[in-house]
Amino acid sequence: MSAGSIFVWETLGTAILILLGTAVVANHVLRNTNGNGAGTLFINFGWAFAVFTGASVAAKSGAHLNPAVTLGLAISGKTPWGDVPVYFAGQMVGAVIGAMLTWATYKLQFDAHDEPGGTLGIFSTAPTIRNTPWNLVTEIIGTFVLVAWILLSPGAKMAENGLPNFGNSALGYAGVAFVVLVIGTSLGGPTGYAINPARDLGPRIAYAFLMPIKGKANPDWGYSWIPVVGPFVGGALAALLYLVLPV
Amino acid sequence: MSAGSIFVWETLGTAILILLGTAVVANHVLRNTNGNGAGTLFINFGWAFAVFTGASVAAKSGAHLNPAVTLGLAISGKTPWGDVPVYFAGQMVGAVIGAMLTWATYKLQFDAHDEPGGTLGIFSTAPTIRNTPWNLVTEIIGTFVLVAWILLSPGAKMAENGLPNFGNSALGYAGVAFVVLVIGTSLGGPTGYAINPARDLGPRIAYAFLMPIKGKANPDWGYSWIPVVGPFVGGALAALLYLVLPV
Amino acid sequence: MSAGSIFVWETLGTAILILLGTAVVANHVLRNTNGNGAGTLFINFGWAFAVFTGASVAAKSGAHLNPAVTLGLAISGKTPWGDVPVYFAGQMVGAVIGAMLTWATYKLQFDAHDEPGGTLGIFSTAPTIRNTPWNLVTEIIGTFVLVAWILLSPGAKMAENGLPNFGNSALGYAGVAFVVLVIGTSLGGPTGYAINPARDLGPRIAYAFLMPIKGKANPDWGYSWIPVVGPFVGGALAALLYLVLPV
Amino acid sequence: MSAGSIFVWETLGTAILILLGTAVVANHVLRNTNGNGAGTLFINFGWAFAVFTGASVAAKSGAHLNPAVTLGLAISGKTPWGDVPVYFAGQMVGAVIGAMLTWATYKLQFDAHDEPGGTLGIFSTAPTIRNTPWNLVTEIIGTFVLVAWILLSPGAKMAENGLPNFGNSALGYAGVAFVVLVIGTSLGGPTGYAINPARDLGPRIAYAFLMPIKGKANPDWGYSWIPVVGPFVGGALAALLYLVLPV
Repeated sequence: MSAGSIFVWETLGTAILILLGTAVVANHVLRNTNGNGAGTLFINFGWAFAVFTGASVAAKSGAHLNPAVTLGLAISGKTPWGDVPVYFAGQMVGAVIGAMLTWATYKLQFDAHDEPGGTLGIFSTAPTIRNTPWNLVTEIIGTFVLVAWILLSPGAKMAENGLPNFGNSALGYAGVAFVVLVIGTSLGGPTGYAINPARDLGPRIAYAFLMPIKGKANPDWGYSWIPVVGPFVGGALAALLYLVLPV
Repeated sequence: MSAGSIFVWETLGTAILILLGTAVVANHVLRNTNGNGAGTLFINFGWAFAVFTGASVAAKSGAHLNPAVTLGLAISGKTPWGDVPVYFAGQMVGAVIGAMLTWATYKLQFDAHDEPGGTLGIFSTAPTIRNTPWNLVTEIIGTFVLVAWILLSPGAKMAENGLPNFGNSALGYAGVAFVVLVIGTSLGGPTGYAINPARDLGPRIAYAFLMPIKGKANPDWGYSWIPVVGPFVGGALAALLYLVLPV
Repeated sequence: MSAGSIFVWETLGTAILILLGTAVVANHVLRNTNGNGAGTLFINFGWAFAVFTGASVAAKSGAHLNPAVTLGLAISGKTPWGDVPVYFAGQMVGAVIGAMLTWATYKLQFDAHDEPGGTLGIFSTAPTIRNTPWNLVTEIIGTFVLVAWILLSPGAKMAENGLPNFGNSALGYAGVAFVVLVIGTSLGGPTGYAINPARDLGPRIAYAFLMPIKGKANPDWGYSWIPVVGPFVGGALAALLYLVLPV
Repeated sequence: MSAGSIFVWETLGTAILILLGTAVVANHVLRNTNGNGAGTLFINFGWAFAVFTGASVAAKSGAHLNPAVTLGLAISGKTPWGDVPVYFAGQMVGAVIGAMLTWATYKLQFDAHDEPGGTLGIFSTAPTIRNTPWNLVTEIIGTFVLVAWILLSPGAKMAENGLPNFGNSALGYAGVAFVVLVIGTSLGGPTGYAINPARDLGPRIAYAFLMPIKGKANPDWGYSWIPVVGPFVGGALAALLYLVLPV
């Protein structure tokens, strides 16, 4: 597949993923919405099927939508290293676009919100207890589970260009949604399960530089590298395990 | 497929969709029900699997059940323009029938309800903050996601008459349900995710002219065109994107 | 399939269905449980996947598990009328066994419960507002949706003996679960969605005559015929519709 | 399949199952998490898709992940008795590893938790009312349903080495997740649905001997044999039923 096509599909899929994922948090956090205070399971379902929807739409590029997945697939020999930069670029551009679409969807609610300091959490993750090594551990474990499942699930068919391809039916990506659902319920407690560098950094950049939200919060750059480095390490560890397993 | 068959299947499928969808809101809103106050996720699951059930039953006509889907499929060249009016007619008739069945299901609860002014929200959507352009934006984005998924999902097989057909198995339409679930959790916050002109206008007409609910609310015709025009625009934009993508 | 085999599979499947279905209500209603007060969506999920589990186990007999389904399949010509009595017998025996297993599972909680008058609702349905014709309407509509989906879903393959057979894969009956989930969320508000004569009458008989619950409630025989007759009428109407549709 | 491969896959799969399963309880129980107090349905979904994820990853060994499943498969003639010890060993080692990973994921929250006596319940089950015979009955019934479904589901394909294999697609193990979901909602009320000797005993050992939690609770060895013996009995009964059924 051409670099241009990879870029287009990853941008589109990641934009839809990040739109639906950040928007469920907006629905829960902002006032004057139908989902205000709807709870943790509500948010977990939203992120889970955000992945389903974005991945289904981007099946043609293998639906990575996540730099940590791309890294894991490159290490395990399934994606050419030369394609990695274009995957990353599409994912970051898509994540910024998705975050801006959430802002547009909830524009009236952002304008009316009286606690603008709490709006960063709609777009990017934060730890409930701040501690660099242990926050990294949590993100590493979460991403390890995601990438291990992608590499080892019996549905992981390898298609053109070595891309993993669950995309043979309307339900092909429901499995990924189920895995993201349980990562959210189970491993999301301490750090909000970024498990995807683009998912966290893209919306953070959009929030900091592009969104006209009055009184918006500091983008917390001091924490911002943890949900980038942790997922990369977790994805790489899953790929290394895959290489030594008797597959 | 004959126009008569399209009409029959779209009427039946849309009636079941609207019955199950408006009834979950009735269960949540009305007193003296088992689901009173059951919450947003409850409503989102109800609407999601209302789509699954109605679409499964109407698989033979391609299970559009939504004029914005029909428009998107016509623009993308998958449904003949000549069939569009009969799809629209079946969808509107079905939506009116479905709403009346919800009234019949909850007849005793409607009679006993002491806040009749709140019953319009069972049948038709309303914005939490009223603003014509931004309410339109929210409905456009929601419907865009729905129709983009229908056109781009790897399960979108094209069958007789160019109709999209997820209907090869008992679970074929579960994917659509998952997409409607996440549109509800994520994009339903500001306007209640009509994302379907018939879903909103049909029950509004039934409510205004056919239902014998004492003290019922004004049908809010001033807002009624937004959940019609917004979904049409969103569906058309998804189809235009589909035509330019390297599918 | 022999009458003996039909009886065995229907008994086993219905017992598991009724065990899991009545037990989720016990978990919600009784004190000293992990699920006390867990809510309507919790109950709806329990009943939905109770159907999935029982139906999967009873795939060999077509997994009717419901006299209204059997009647609908007989009217539509898919099940021989001669097999109907043995289906009914297995379903009733299974329902009694399932209810007794729920009593055994929660035996300690029944002994400790201080409102024995509320325990009938664990096993059998009751209307929130009592009214014979409209309670019947609600049960008719709910069962109509169930049987219409069974007859019209694209997954309704007809196998040996004309039995509908969703049972070709581990997930074949998930579609039925999704339909029962949405019937619960949407149509269960007024009467508790019996939608199955055996589901309601079997546990009521077990409760009245077999369970040693101190101070147990009156079995409410005056209402008991409505969740029998309503589902039969709804299933028959769906079958009649099926016969006139251009399938 | 070699004993070494069985051990590796069962260890990996059970570790992921127990990590995700005990972690959802940690998220609910511990303070300073995003899921604190998220409720019973939240926990049920977490355990259900923990099974989906662990089983998908361990498809190559048949994904038993549970000594009671292994016993049932051995009795029913599907797993050689000679392989049973290596299954048990992998499951116990995996369960200990999974529990330790949950401790690492929530390390900061364990350190900050002010009710250390309540942390045993994150890892192992306990009855709400203590009574040896009836607690056993509840665990027997729950495990019976699980193993009966595994043996009788139409998706139970038997592959290499007589292992049951749902693992032909990304969604193959979703059915097991649905069964575990409903066992949780319906039969988990009295004893917390261990339904798996390794799931309960492995984390209990890890908690007692390996975890550095200040003020941690007594491991309650007096109860610990019930969630071992009960599931073995339930799994054996399901296998014996399977052998006499007209399959």
